[in-house]
Amino acid sequence: MRITSYTVTPIATIDPPLRAASGMHAPYALRVILEIACEDGLVGISESPCTPGVVESLTHVCESLLGSDPLQLTSLLSKAESSFEPNEDERGDSPWDQRIWVHIRSALEVACLDYMGKRFEARVCDLLGGAAREKVPFGAYLFYKERGAGGPLEFDVDPSAKGWDAARQEAAKTPDGVVAQAKGMLDAFGFQSIKLKGGVFPPDEEADAMFACYDALGKDIPLRLDPNAVWSIEIGIRIGSKLDPILEYLEDPVRGQEAMAKVGKAIKSPLATNMCTTSFADIPRAIEVHSEDVILTDHHFWGGIKPCIELCRICQTFGRGISMHSNSHLGISLAAMVHLGACIPQLDYDLDTHYPWQSEEIIEGGPLQFEDGFVAVPNAPGLGVTIDREALDRLHQNYKNCGLEFRNDEAEMQKIEPGWKFEATRW
Amino acid sequence: MRITSYTVTPIATIDPPLRAASGMHAPYALRVILEIACEDGLVGISESPCTPGVVESLTHVCESLLGSDPLQLTSLLSKAESSFEPNEDERGDSPWDQRIWVHIRSALEVACLDYMGKRFEARVCDLLGGAAREKVPFGAYLFYKERGAGGPLEFDVDPSAKGWDAARQEAAKTPDGVVAQAKGMLDAFGFQSIKLKGGVFPPDEEADAMFACYDALGKDIPLRLDPNAVWSIEIGIRIGSKLDPILEYLEDPVRGQEAMAKVGKAIKSPLATNMCTTSFADIPRAIEVHSEDVILTDHHFWGGIKPCIELCRICQTFGRGISMHSNSHLGISLAAMVHLGACIPQLDYDLDTHYPWQSEEIIEGGPLQFEDGFVAVPNAPGLGVTIDREALDRLHQNYKNCGLEFRNDEAEMQKIEPGWKFEATRW
Repeated sequence: MRITSYTVTPIATIDPPLRAASGMHAPYALRVILEIACEDGLVGISESPCTPGVVESLTHVCESLLGSDPLQLTSLLSKAESSFEPNEDERGDSPWDQRIWVHIRSALEVACLDYMGKRFEARVCDLLGGAAREKVPFGAYLFYKERGAGGPLEFDVDPSAKGWDAARQEAAKTPDGVVAQAKGMLDAFGFQSIKLKGGVFPPDEEADAMFACYDALGKDIPLRLDPNAVWSIEIGIRIGSKLDPILEYLEDPVRGQEAMAKVGKAIKSPLATNMCTTSFADIPRAIEVHSEDVILTDHHFWGGIKPCIELCRICQTFGRGISMHSNSHLGISLAAMVHLGACIPQLDYDLDTHYPWQSEEIIEGGPLQFEDGFVAVPNAPGLGVTIDREALDRLHQNYKNCGLEFRNDEAEMQKIEPGWKFEATRW
Repeated sequence: MRITSYTVTPIATIDPPLRAASGMHAPYALRVILEIACEDGLVGISESPCTPGVVESLTHVCESLLGSDPLQLTSLLSKAESSFEPNEDERGDSPWDQRIWVHIRSALEVACLDYMGKRFEARVCDLLGGAAREKVPFGAYLFYKERGAGGPLEFDVDPSAKGWDAARQEAAKTPDGVVAQAKGMLDAFGFQSIKLKGGVFPPDEEADAMFACYDALGKDIPLRLDPNAVWSIEIGIRIGSKLDPILEYLEDPVRGQEAMAKVGKAIKSPLATNMCTTSFADIPRAIEVHSEDVILTDHHFWGGIKPCIELCRICQTFGRGISMHSNSHLGISLAAMVHLGACIPQLDYDLDTHYPWQSEEIIEGGPLQFEDGFVAVPNAPGLGVTIDREALDRLHQNYKNCGLEFRNDEAEMQKIEPGWKFEATRW
């Protein structure tokens, strides 16, 4: 069966003003939707982070793959890689991964797996060894946040919103604000663990927020903090030690494998990363210096679902835990994350997801639902989700109208704090 | 779809008197054929090494899996493992792996993959990411050998045999005999590399055989020697150094990861293993001490094809090469080996196979064919091979009649050298 056509659709989806070490989320998050159609009329889909480079490369690569067989993933991806120039491809200092090839590879792999599933009338997870679990656990992903919900005119709040729809529009800049956000998210989605995106306020304030969550929510809710590597080693050790009694893990307190190893040796909490060990090339040194105890997989950044499953084998082999990283995303990405989460034989931690922060969706039937913090594996063939064409068109119009091409948290932050600059090590 | 029935059929297939560090092959090699039938009428098959423990455990495990869905491999294998007692499961000192669970896991996994392929009308390799190559390279696997062809009454030679059929009945106990065997095998199958099973004669004699091959066949034929770990470190270093100018790799010169690391540091040739690093649990120490440069995968011993693909990722990640181990086997195993060989993204070496030594087959259409040393990936769904019922019945009768239950190379060797004993370190 051959690929006969493809569509690469950049979209912009309303995103609230979430804070991070990199600054603040813009009113829209950018994603790209890939559809590959085959001569049997079946279409495979995937969702990826969007930059002009991703859109351009994905289009170029798909053009070269017309006529290829989506079942021949190895040769298809090898061909795709050969038409790609990886020279300038670097992860960058941001919390998110800026390499283009891993995005392209993931987009192609997931779309081909979705196609295979539809062709074989099997779920993606069942093409990959079957589900180790039929529902996949996610955790509450808390953010320091400005007031507002993102979107056109950076609209402030919708007075008619209720429940989490109202709560997610509130600001959260203090321990009390974080606790309120946590309660709102736990109530709405049933999450059973919490991660706070840190690196925003002075480290002791963020530690206070974690203790406030611990006091308010109890010791049965595992807690994580992720300062996105903007702490110094000294701060990492001091704050990490302070938080040792209450943390499930500390994510990327400092930058680089050597610095992580130093902090890891000095504190008791496990260290997790999606910043210092982000490719197979990083693994040998990670094992040698023991830079982390837990690796956050992410199919968008490891080049697809299969490489993530292989990463899990490496982690299991070397006694490292597995968790999952997330950026702002919609339901196609979530479905892929759920299939991956279902396949991992030993899942050590609840997975990250930004999904509760999103107010728009492009899959038919509306957002995937959480029950007690879990998302059930979609039961239809492939990824198990289909595109709502009207919503896709609308979000593509958003993309064309919003004026955003890159995620630039620094520029967004400067709108509320003129002169604000990202610092690779802030404290 | 559910498993409705299964068949576990032990068979004995004529095997010539090949020599190894463990002694000599018996007149029959023992294999077990698994068939699992599902409610859609499709049947998945696999072939494994056979011991009474494997037959008994496989039967017991299959009984517990009736009603299971073969697509749910992860949970099916997890259930199988839970009904299995791994306590006494050790690899042993022999050249072959004596663990039962890895055999059972492999038998189940391959049969389920074969079923899936038939159900989806896709080749096993295409369920696993697609073929990186449509034909898979094997090497000539040479053996020191007594005269004869194995089988009933340990029959000597068939005077009507021609070509390789005649050559494989000859003795080979000297460098000249090894060269003659090499020429016969290269002529017949087009292999482009050579491995000699060593550990049989004094190490300098075996080195002489390698030099004789080098002189007779030229430097374009990569050469390997495998003494199955019966050399001392001193011998490993001395003979390894002597062979450095001509070896592609030296396989398991010595026993254990630490000893391998010492030899590896002292000689230039890469070291390969299927004896000191044989499970994921062995990998961390293997990487730490650098016990080998090449790992021989074997789906029978690593618990299936998927674990082998994951092993390949580990090897690629840590800069280790990949090759493939073999024991006496028939065409179902070869088909699985070919699918695995087709899937490995980066195949560094020609694969081992005993297949040319076998004179019987149970797949329809007769033995799979080599062309220039390559076997093409079978083009039918699943493994792409089907069972010849008459042949299976005949080889099962062989099993019942031959009086062999275990592979016991020592006992067989004692028939020609009374009192001969296996020694874990012979030289």
